[in-house]
Amino acid sequence: MKRALISVSDKDGILDFARGLSKEGIEILSTGGTAKLLREGGLTVKDVSEVTGFPECLDGRVKTLHPKVHGGILAKRGDEDHQKTLKDLEIDAIDLVVINLYPFKETIAKEAVSLEEAIENIDIGGPTMLRSAAKNFEDVTVVTDRRDYDRVLKEIQKRGDTSLVTRYELALKVFRETAYYDGLIAEHLGKNMKKHLEEHIGKGNTEKGMAAGETDQGDEADSTHKADKAYPEDFAFPEKLTLPYEKVMDLRYGENPHQKAAFYREAGNVPGSLVHAEQLQGKALSFNNLNDTQGALELLKEFEKPTAVAVKHTNPCGVASNETIEKAFEKCYAADPKSIFGGIVALNREVDESTAREMEEIFLEVVVAPGFSREALEVFKTKKNLRILQLPDILQRERGMDIKKVSGGLLVQDKDRDLISDSKIVTEKAPGDEEMKDLEFAYKVAKHVKSNGVVIAKDQQTLAIGPGQTSRIWALDNAIRNVEHDLAGSVLASDAFFPFDDCVMKAKEQGISAIIQPGGSLKDEDSIQCCDRYGISMVFTGMRHFKH
Amino acid sequence: MKRALISVSDKDGILDFARGLSKEGIEILSTGGTAKLLREGGLTVKDVSEVTGFPECLDGRVKTLHPKVHGGILAKRGDEDHQKTLKDLEIDAIDLVVINLYPFKETIAKEAVSLEEAIENIDIGGPTMLRSAAKNFEDVTVVTDRRDYDRVLKEIQKRGDTSLVTRYELALKVFRETAYYDGLIAEHLGKNMKKHLEEHIGKGNTEKGMAAGETDQGDEADSTHKADKAYPEDFAFPEKLTLPYEKVMDLRYGENPHQKAAFYREAGNVPGSLVHAEQLQGKALSFNNLNDTQGALELLKEFEKPTAVAVKHTNPCGVASNETIEKAFEKCYAADPKSIFGGIVALNREVDESTAREMEEIFLEVVVAPGFSREALEVFKTKKNLRILQLPDILQRERGMDIKKVSGGLLVQDKDRDLISDSKIVTEKAPGDEEMKDLEFAYKVAKHVKSNGVVIAKDQQTLAIGPGQTSRIWALDNAIRNVEHDLAGSVLASDAFFPFDDCVMKAKEQGISAIIQPGGSLKDEDSIQCCDRYGISMVFTGMRHFKH
Repeated sequence: MKRALISVSDKDGILDFARGLSKEGIEILSTGGTAKLLREGGLTVKDVSEVTGFPECLDGRVKTLHPKVHGGILAKRGDEDHQKTLKDLEIDAIDLVVINLYPFKETIAKEAVSLEEAIENIDIGGPTMLRSAAKNFEDVTVVTDRRDYDRVLKEIQKRGDTSLVTRYELALKVFRETAYYDGLIAEHLGKNMKKHLEEHIGKGNTEKGMAAGETDQGDEADSTHKADKAYPEDFAFPEKLTLPYEKVMDLRYGENPHQKAAFYREAGNVPGSLVHAEQLQGKALSFNNLNDTQGALELLKEFEKPTAVAVKHTNPCGVASNETIEKAFEKCYAADPKSIFGGIVALNREVDESTAREMEEIFLEVVVAPGFSREALEVFKTKKNLRILQLPDILQRERGMDIKKVSGGLLVQDKDRDLISDSKIVTEKAPGDEEMKDLEFAYKVAKHVKSNGVVIAKDQQTLAIGPGQTSRIWALDNAIRNVEHDLAGSVLASDAFFPFDDCVMKAKEQGISAIIQPGGSLKDEDSIQCCDRYGISMVFTGMRHFKH
Repeated sequence: MKRALISVSDKDGILDFARGLSKEGIEILSTGGTAKLLREGGLTVKDVSEVTGFPECLDGRVKTLHPKVHGGILAKRGDEDHQKTLKDLEIDAIDLVVINLYPFKETIAKEAVSLEEAIENIDIGGPTMLRSAAKNFEDVTVVTDRRDYDRVLKEIQKRGDTSLVTRYELALKVFRETAYYDGLIAEHLGKNMKKHLEEHIGKGNTEKGMAAGETDQGDEADSTHKADKAYPEDFAFPEKLTLPYEKVMDLRYGENPHQKAAFYREAGNVPGSLVHAEQLQGKALSFNNLNDTQGALELLKEFEKPTAVAVKHTNPCGVASNETIEKAFEKCYAADPKSIFGGIVALNREVDESTAREMEEIFLEVVVAPGFSREALEVFKTKKNLRILQLPDILQRERGMDIKKVSGGLLVQDKDRDLISDSKIVTEKAPGDEEMKDLEFAYKVAKHVKSNGVVIAKDQQTLAIGPGQTSRIWALDNAIRNVEHDLAGSVLASDAFFPFDDCVMKAKEQGISAIIQPGGSLKDEDSIQCCDRYGISMVFTGMRHFKH
């Protein structure tokens, strides 16, 4: 190994690495700030501009995009023609490329980053050198992660070069990095398109055609039509979808012990999301903990009043809203004191000592809340295994996408963010004010129960939940069967319409007084008549909430 | 707009587009094959090598990586310093960049593609020009999709340039493309690492250090340790995970009508996967159709004998194996003739006329099978809405990953590909041969039922399925409650262990003669003793199958 090109944005550890290379007799080429740093460290460094005979220009936008650099990286060492070309064109081979990229991610993570600043942080030269070197991994070593400096240096010290396995791994890492990097850029540009273009217009940057598009109405034949509708709306579902994620942690195992698993975070800041939760105590989070906590959080975000949600096997088993978080938890627990065993509890207010004491008495896997009082945390200390998660912005609702993996592909959809599209009382009797509040409460829970699902509630507390059945009446049977509560005067919510009037009859038997459901069945009228016959009130929402 | 650089791998439509540009007085720069084609079409074209003063070299690996090209693309038009630099360095601005990339995807789709061929098809110059132009979208138009030729040409014809909105959209498209492209490369290199390196060694390409790593045993201090373990195993869960997908189709809506949705396919060929199914008739597939069909296929792939699977709301409601596919379907239907209404049926043999006639009598959403006889297709024609999907390699099992979306991130895990780790009869009584077959059958189904789930089966037919409960005994209650079959002599499977002996007692009441479950509860012994008391046999599998 004779020659290395080093140009890094993150300069941590680079001086030591370069010193090590230099000691092995490797010549170092560099640019701008990296060259300065290495020289100050006492190293002899050749400027890339000396190699190319071309100045760094355009505020550094063009530095290394030159055949003397890329020829030196891309030439095959075992190919006679390639070697002759290098000689003829006076290109020196470059054997090691050490680059990390402009900090695009860190830039866009700043609040109120401007389009200009983001754009300036799109690295062009860096990814190109990384990709050139990675393409030629058979002969060239490429390093883009400073955690690899040590490994690479040790190999060179030991045998004068790196192994093929190492070079292959490093090349693979490069393509992961460049894919991720451009995925971030695409996501940022896509998400902020409207904002970016409006800023541009606001700043008078209209001379390049925007004004024409905005004012030239009435012509549908060409791109002005595009400008009329302002911004295309299908940008969430582009032809090519590349989803960039970073690992948060490896998990001990997946849904089952024989499955390996890891937890990844999206690029960009997603307020109120699980990846931001800070674990204050307890065992490591498992795959199923995370999956259940996710379900609990989504449901919790439906409520503003103090609310507690208990989840087991991804279905809610108890939910209650009340004046205080302590009372909310008490009623959440009382909703189904059996199923909560080994479950997840999510709360939307700081947990105080007395609430903590009540939770401490039962076996829970995870408690997640926006905060915990010092005393509450003391209480939990007696339960060393219990995972305590703090998520300050727990009530923030996320706008993103929902994804379901299928074999060979993905189903991607908007999250189910709404609740009711068109609330309509369809029975002779109208629900009273309290009933109305309970109907909405129950419907919010039903939205987060696996389909077919029904929920029975009273006084902002679930009394019975029937999840995941293949028929609606079975879901209701199921909800009722194990209940120890008196259901008289309670309300019933269903995530999809009643196909028959059997659910109304069953509701009557239990003394249920009001029902909420989307409506839309051919036999809606049967259910309405049945309600009228029994003096039950019923509300149609116009919005189904299947969840699978 | 004065100057365009055109260099395309896919030459479809490029001549017409270039002619249009030329008519507008735009100078055209080009390279290699594209230049030749345009000249043959009668256009005046300037070679990029004439611009750079540097020859195309290294088998075309280096053509456009030159400051005269990239300076021309990257200079800001409104920046006086940039404009002065262009003048001083004699660089002409390039206003339009038209590039599509080397066909990496098509190359790796070929059977038995070599590493060399794949590597040669990693485009370096193309993505760099696309990214340069996209970065400078404020001034430069970039086209990488030939479907945009028309739109861009019309805008130029109309107003001499493109609009800012158009340039922003095209830049966004570029970063989606380059992210996808590098995502493909990373996936290909990651998946085939072992194969690629073995090929290299086989070909004697060991001089660059591989041999050293392979033979230099006993030194754990450095990279030889890495070589010892041959290939790292955690490559499925890298630090940066970028998942490249292509849209198959937009869907009418998502899980619910108010959610927008689309269906995407993975890069690369995934045998036996849903994305390969060909729709032979019927309404457009919905989000829920695809999600349910996915569930049906995963379960079907567990079986080799002729088998039919019915799924409703992502849970199986009937499954049967038999000597012929017709009998299998009959028993699948008879398993639960109510729930199958509006469901999905998947079969692992060609559907013949008589089987089609039986299916025609009930309301189904989707039928998926490896094939359909001509007569069967005739039968289905009377049901115009019924979706018929043909998936010839339906039995191929996929190796990939399972993904669950959580707020702000992803849970990624190996698919649950195994069934039993350590089969052990734990009771005094051992199951008979037929019982043993039924136990395995029932356990395969239980693996695909939402947790907590139980399955009761006899003679390779499910008799009762209890999915998605928060407690195991409820799942069993649930399975039994609506059954119209006699369960005497049937077997019971549970996806996870029995926490108490209550399930055994309930099984006894129903005349169930054998049980299969993972085992592993603190109270296993209670369940075993209970079985022994009632003369029930029980098998532990050692492998839990939660599915949520």
